[in-house]
Amino acid sequence: MSDPKTSPSRRAFLQGAATGALTLGATAASAQTPDPLITEKQPWATGLGDGVDATPYGLPIQYEGDVIRRNVPWLTADPISSINFTPIHALDGTITPQGCAFERHHSGAIELRKEDYRLMVNGDVGQQLIFSYADLERFPRENHVYFCECAANTGMEWAGAQLNGAQFTHGMIHNMEYSGVPLKTLLEEAGYDTAADPTGKWVYVEGADASSNGRSIPMEKALEDCLVAFKANGEALRKEHGYPVRLVVPGWEGNMWVKWLRRIEVMDHPVESREETSKYTDTLADGTARKWTWVMDAKSVVTSPSPQSPITHGKGPLVITGLAWTGHGKITRVDVSKDGGMSWETARLAAEPGNKSLVRFYLDTEWDGEEMFLQSRAMDETGYVQPTKTQLREVRGLNSVYHNNCIQTWWVKPNGEAENVEVS
Amino acid sequence: MSDPKTSPSRRAFLQGAATGALTLGATAASAQTPDPLITEKQPWATGLGDGVDATPYGLPIQYEGDVIRRNVPWLTADPISSINFTPIHALDGTITPQGCAFERHHSGAIELRKEDYRLMVNGDVGQQLIFSYADLERFPRENHVYFCECAANTGMEWAGAQLNGAQFTHGMIHNMEYSGVPLKTLLEEAGYDTAADPTGKWVYVEGADASSNGRSIPMEKALEDCLVAFKANGEALRKEHGYPVRLVVPGWEGNMWVKWLRRIEVMDHPVESREETSKYTDTLADGTARKWTWVMDAKSVVTSPSPQSPITHGKGPLVITGLAWTGHGKITRVDVSKDGGMSWETARLAAEPGNKSLVRFYLDTEWDGEEMFLQSRAMDETGYVQPTKTQLREVRGLNSVYHNNCIQTWWVKPNGEAENVEVS
Repeated sequence: MSDPKTSPSRRAFLQGAATGALTLGATAASAQTPDPLITEKQPWATGLGDGVDATPYGLPIQYEGDVIRRNVPWLTADPISSINFTPIHALDGTITPQGCAFERHHSGAIELRKEDYRLMVNGDVGQQLIFSYADLERFPRENHVYFCECAANTGMEWAGAQLNGAQFTHGMIHNMEYSGVPLKTLLEEAGYDTAADPTGKWVYVEGADASSNGRSIPMEKALEDCLVAFKANGEALRKEHGYPVRLVVPGWEGNMWVKWLRRIEVMDHPVESREETSKYTDTLADGTARKWTWVMDAKSVVTSPSPQSPITHGKGPLVITGLAWTGHGKITRVDVSKDGGMSWETARLAAEPGNKSLVRFYLDTEWDGEEMFLQSRAMDETGYVQPTKTQLREVRGLNSVYHNNCIQTWWVKPNGEAENVEVS
Repeated sequence: MSDPKTSPSRRAFLQGAATGALTLGATAASAQTPDPLITEKQPWATGLGDGVDATPYGLPIQYEGDVIRRNVPWLTADPISSINFTPIHALDGTITPQGCAFERHHSGAIELRKEDYRLMVNGDVGQQLIFSYADLERFPRENHVYFCECAANTGMEWAGAQLNGAQFTHGMIHNMEYSGVPLKTLLEEAGYDTAADPTGKWVYVEGADASSNGRSIPMEKALEDCLVAFKANGEALRKEHGYPVRLVVPGWEGNMWVKWLRRIEVMDHPVESREETSKYTDTLADGTARKWTWVMDAKSVVTSPSPQSPITHGKGPLVITGLAWTGHGKITRVDVSKDGGMSWETARLAAEPGNKSLVRFYLDTEWDGEEMFLQSRAMDETGYVQPTKTQLREVRGLNSVYHNNCIQTWWVKPNGEAENVEVS
């Protein structure tokens, strides 16, 4: 065990209190003057609260009314085909509650009852099958925590530092524990020979909403780890996340995680649908478009401090925290820079990194009250290092929308406020 | 990869469809007759759904209106000092969403703003300190997934099989990812020598609600893994779970996880408060009361099929699933019996068991349509095996309330309905 006289937190806090250098008002004051909040009557301690019949299904307390999904009206022509953002600046840990997990719709979130749900498996299979929801519940199922990131996450950063907040620059992501049936199991059930060479084979998946949002997935991936999922964080998928069934395509762009999944067709070619030609391709520096960029590369962002989560306590002890992830497997390391990438410190990972799931990192530090150019960079088990914006633009140019995994910079000012900026 | 011609699910399902022995209507029918639901117009596919501005903070879809916390009015005199139950029969995976995670209050759920929150650390410490919420956010923090189980969970089973549903017999439990500051860190901050021998030292913790719900915790545990937590599943604690700050006492009875935590006093003796003398002690067979039974022993329950989750699909492939946990560390194995404990099959654990957190288990099986007496039994890393009701009663008698971790029996009838019963 550590000696309290030399432990970093004690040294930092008590020295700060002694010198008055910190703004830890309550701590510094407690030894000298009574705190009116504890010497005066505390109304919450003198009456009764709500009974257990008050909230059969609970919502956040009113004081957390700002911790919500937000959309940016000018970003799209209509909220029906648009996106809202997870309030990652205000969350901690790694699990995203369904209630504030980002949404992306192409024709709005539909209501589809379990009783009316059907999933067809057709095409190059031994026997075309149609499953009801109740059928799906009879197959062996798995549970995994995976992140789902929209390909367009951070997409506004190609042209510059445009959106002022981690929620808006990086909030097209959520991370949930999914329960479902492996896609491989359903293909086997339909007589597809999953032991055969998958090369050149594809599945085409589509949803029951008006957009249908069809996407082609190589058979290798379909058999590797895709899940036909019906629960997230233990409970039924929310309507806006594809109730009652969505496809989970771990580590791959969110658009392929087809919601209200209604059909899986085995084919010997990709469909080259609208969603994988005019959309979800990457415009390169020379003007050509790159297709089939499915995997979400390693990425990270500091969630606090950040523009929506400024430092309000002045200099002294500061927890810098954020999220890291990679579609290639596991994160191995996250570094944090306070000076725009000139020097780096290795952050502490809050838990053993999982496969294709969010990792929380912390840098427990002291703030001297001077400006910082905060950055984080993630590394994954393939040896890949998250690139700078400059490095990414050299290959990709300025006209892309998707797959921007650049290092993000927050300019933290001496007053504690933060701003989205670019460093050269 | 497995040969589809011999894989268990394929063999089971397709043979079933071929012989008509299964009730997989859609599957069996699909090869012959069109399904009206997919040949007729699907209204959800022909119009637009909700836009991304519809639900800034989302709730479950209306069709899941039954998946809620429920209280049992006759169980207590007033809902202010009562309990409601997690709908574990309807959940999968391991994470419990905050919205349906059980509540237990002694004087109701209070509303306490972060700005008004104070946490005092006093008693046998170097310097009495009072922390504001903002202070707590400046200490290094940790994330862990832990179960929280009320000591009274399954307490009605001492006298017989009384409540008909896993939600009511075993639903005083939830499992969340907590973010918070180790209690050890705050004690060090107050100058307590955490390197000294903790023997005979205690912390007394109390909440800011009218009940104050004070409990004594041995210093060994306080220093081992207790967390002063402010987030659960990434977001702020809900009002009903102690917003803004609760104590997390991993593996120990939920009553010690003091909500609205306002004071931690270091003492050289336990307080022997109401909550640890007249309550939260165990009446033994000889009429004496056993105190200081903090740890929640290894336990498990089949969540489906169960009285609230009957089999509706007839015989054939059946997924039996449930939860297991232990306050002593990690679960190592879960067995399932269909014949009231005469024979056992080892279940599949859905993930590597975590420390003091829920484990999901599955038994993928075939149901012959005959009655079953379904049981599960958990084993943990200490070698402990979950006891039968008879074994437990031999030691504890019939007059206890708390710490009932007996093997639970569901009588599944040929019509698929299930009932809470006892087997001799």
